Amino acid sequence: MIDNPNDPSLRSFIDVSPDSPFPIQNLPFGVFRRDKNSYPHIGIAIGDEILDVSELTEAAPQFLKWPAFLQLNLWHDLSNILGITPTFWREIRQQVSQLLRYDNPALRDNPKLRQRVLTRRSDVRMLMPCHIPNYTDFYSSREHATNVGIMLRGKDNALMPNWVHLPVAYHGRASSIVVSGTDIRRPHGQTKADDADLPTFGPTKSLDFELEIGTLIGTPNDLGTPIPTSQAAEHVFGMVLVNDWSARDIQKWEYQPLGPFLAKNFATSISPWVVTLDALEPFRVAGPKQDPEPLPYLRCEGNWSYDIQLEVWLQTAKMTEPVRISATNAKHLYWNICQQIAHHTINGCNLQTGDLLASGTISGPTPDSLGSMLELAWKGTRPIQLPNGETRVFLQDGDRVTMTGYCQGPGYRVGFGEVTARVLPAVEFGN
Amino acid sequence: MIDNPNDPSLRSFIDVSPDSPFPIQNLPFGVFRRDKNSYPHIGIAIGDEILDVSELTEAAPQFLKWPAFLQLNLWHDLSNILGITPTFWREIRQQVSQLLRYDNPALRDNPKLRQRVLTRRSDVRMLMPCHIPNYTDFYSSREHATNVGIMLRGKDNALMPNWVHLPVAYHGRASSIVVSGTDIRRPHGQTKADDADLPTFGPTKSLDFELEIGTLIGTPNDLGTPIPTSQAAEHVFGMVLVNDWSARDIQKWEYQPLGPFLAKNFATSISPWVVTLDALEPFRVAGPKQDPEPLPYLRCEGNWSYDIQLEVWLQTAKMTEPVRISATNAKHLYWNICQQIAHHTINGCNLQTGDLLASGTISGPTPDSLGSMLELAWKGTRPIQLPNGETRVFLQDGDRVTMTGYCQGPGYRVGFGEVTARVLPAVEFGN
Repeated sequence: MIDNPNDPSLRSFIDVSPDSPFPIQNLPFGVFRRDKNSYPHIGIAIGDEILDVSELTEAAPQFLKWPAFLQLNLWHDLSNILGITPTFWREIRQQVSQLLRYDNPALRDNPKLRQRVLTRRSDVRMLMPCHIPNYTDFYSSREHATNVGIMLRGKDNALMPNWVHLPVAYHGRASSIVVSGTDIRRPHGQTKADDADLPTFGPTKSLDFELEIGTLIGTPNDLGTPIPTSQAAEHVFGMVLVNDWSARDIQKWEYQPLGPFLAKNFATSISPWVVTLDALEPFRVAGPKQDPEPLPYLRCEGNWSYDIQLEVWLQTAKMTEPVRISATNAKHLYWNICQQIAHHTINGCNLQTGDLLASGTISGPTPDSLGSMLELAWKGTRPIQLPNGETRVFLQDGDRVTMTGYCQGPGYRVGFGEVTARVLPAVEFGN
Repeated sequence: MIDNPNDPSLRSFIDVSPDSPFPIQNLPFGVFRRDKNSYPHIGIAIGDEILDVSELTEAAPQFLKWPAFLQLNLWHDLSNILGITPTFWREIRQQVSQLLRYDNPALRDNPKLRQRVLTRRSDVRMLMPCHIPNYTDFYSSREHATNVGIMLRGKDNALMPNWVHLPVAYHGRASSIVVSGTDIRRPHGQTKADDADLPTFGPTKSLDFELEIGTLIGTPNDLGTPIPTSQAAEHVFGMVLVNDWSARDIQKWEYQPLGPFLAKNFATSISPWVVTLDALEPFRVAGPKQDPEPLPYLRCEGNWSYDIQLEVWLQTAKMTEPVRISATNAKHLYWNICQQIAHHTINGCNLQTGDLLASGTISGPTPDSLGSMLELAWKGTRPIQLPNGETRVFLQDGDRVTMTGYCQGPGYRVGFGEVTARVLPAVEFGN
């Protein structure tokens, strides 16, 4: 008999502190390497440890019932798991939940097996969870779109007329998505000052972060076959945190009329642990009221926003610890993931296993809940004051940006861990 | 001793008519399947035949000296060939050129081997030449950008200020790129008429083609490592024809402020034969004069435009043969491929083996040389008159669009073959 793996009263035989992102109610999937020479393994985070799923499958196949065709493919990449049906993901999570329970002696009382299949998170290097074939970035926070619109076009024309009728999005660059921990090199590019006649070339002077959440597609759809809102969630494996790095000065000069390109495609960072949609299920809440009512293909039943608390932390090279510079919540997003997926595929566009659909910058309604430096420092007019006396309007070399996110349950958190990266100086080259 | 495979006097022992796209001076690479149940093979087109490279490697390995690590990977996909160095591509093409020469008896006089490794092009099905990890669409035709600008913003603001300073581009959708011969389903989407208060939903009423050429990346670059213009060509394997299908009414409503999305990502068609940059070498010509002079990172030495004659043919369901509706030339493109690649990577963005970089719609200076229906029929105001009395402002269901391209040498053509597709009616669904 299988318990509900989301049951708040469940406990693991591994100690998990109440503020850990990874209690037994979460069980996120990731890919890690024990050392430089070992193969990537698939793991599930539990407290400060990782259950090595690849190893467990080999050492004790009776605990995880994989379909036969997967037995030999449980390495390197989550794509093989993502590409199958949600029923199957659910079963794996349930089996692991069962195995890690406080009252199940099977693994708990087998020290040899524990040593082989459990490893400390701090001892391994996390890798990209899967190959990401395509990356789409939405623009689904009304507050963010409004803020940027005000800065660009003034208060009266802040939101474009289409914005309230469809989840605006564009294609990002899949090749430059990197996992948390990868340093980010300040990019060069072409920019033009407002009062200059000609553009100039050099490192960006307005490097920014964007706080987003990202949906990883599991089950693909065929080219020509739209996914209705009612079925959209069945195509989602889980979510990660996303930092969509942006060079605002490059963006400003290049983006008309075809949208952002080099201002974004130098790097996008994601968190390594994929929190399944199943684990997020208890945290579904109603989204903002949508007025005007969307066209029928964008309407959906039930609550599809997620109550995920999000934070951005900044640590400059001179600081000894990071400081929180923003706190917001994913529930502010106007367009939900079912609407994003239905819109994305309404013309027949095919989503592929591992595709990343990011939310767009998530800003809340207050000045301390904004998801980018552009907004926090309001285009440079309102510098961020740091506790050591430094100020920031955009990121400086040596700055480290860390984003975290979690859903607060009664006595436990279903968390994402973090996505973190440090800004490196631009490379020098002789142009 | 190796002859120059571009020598105009070279002849193959296989008969090739002077207007064939595939003489011995071309030798483009493609992937094909002999029948439904056979594996994809790599081939090189010669006249009406295909030299089956995968089969040849097995049957007579002495004729093609592959690096050892490739011996077992010559199937399914060109990526394995594309990902190695240009020196190597050149050697393969030279070896095949040698083997197909009029005066080389090795294959010519071996009927058993000929039967095994040569097959008629009309007997096989062409597949995608390789996996395309990322798709970038440029906007490099000044005539096209100006025409669209005039229609959208009037004559005085036709070209955006950035256009003459950088090769504008955006990320397209890689997953929905299909090979020539794949029918295209009319997409649904959200549109808003100029005089309407609210958007409506339905099949696009302004389905269009876009005539482009596409560059396939061979050798990748690392994230963080720009490719200078002087080295760009060494990263290019070859070129294909591209039809970047567009739904103009969807585009008009959705594209502000982040660029085209659903108006484009339902399908992009490419021609199946990849013409190597080496085969195009004799057809390099000077491009349009660039004024203002580009920034140093965009300057390049030598001629990097290509004299490729391009044609668009239309056949409606009622016509018995196609009619040419446009003829233009790739040499009109303002930004060349070296500049496109240098710009794309100047911020450190990593190009991957198989990436497609398309030129953007190629329009010439005259009304009969425009590369889209939007321009040919000038936003519907100047319907295209067809010989059977039909007219078109945009594509109708049942219309077949075929694009061809070739470089004219003395007595031979280095051609691309064609990219062709038929428009199918929109699927019906109950929304």
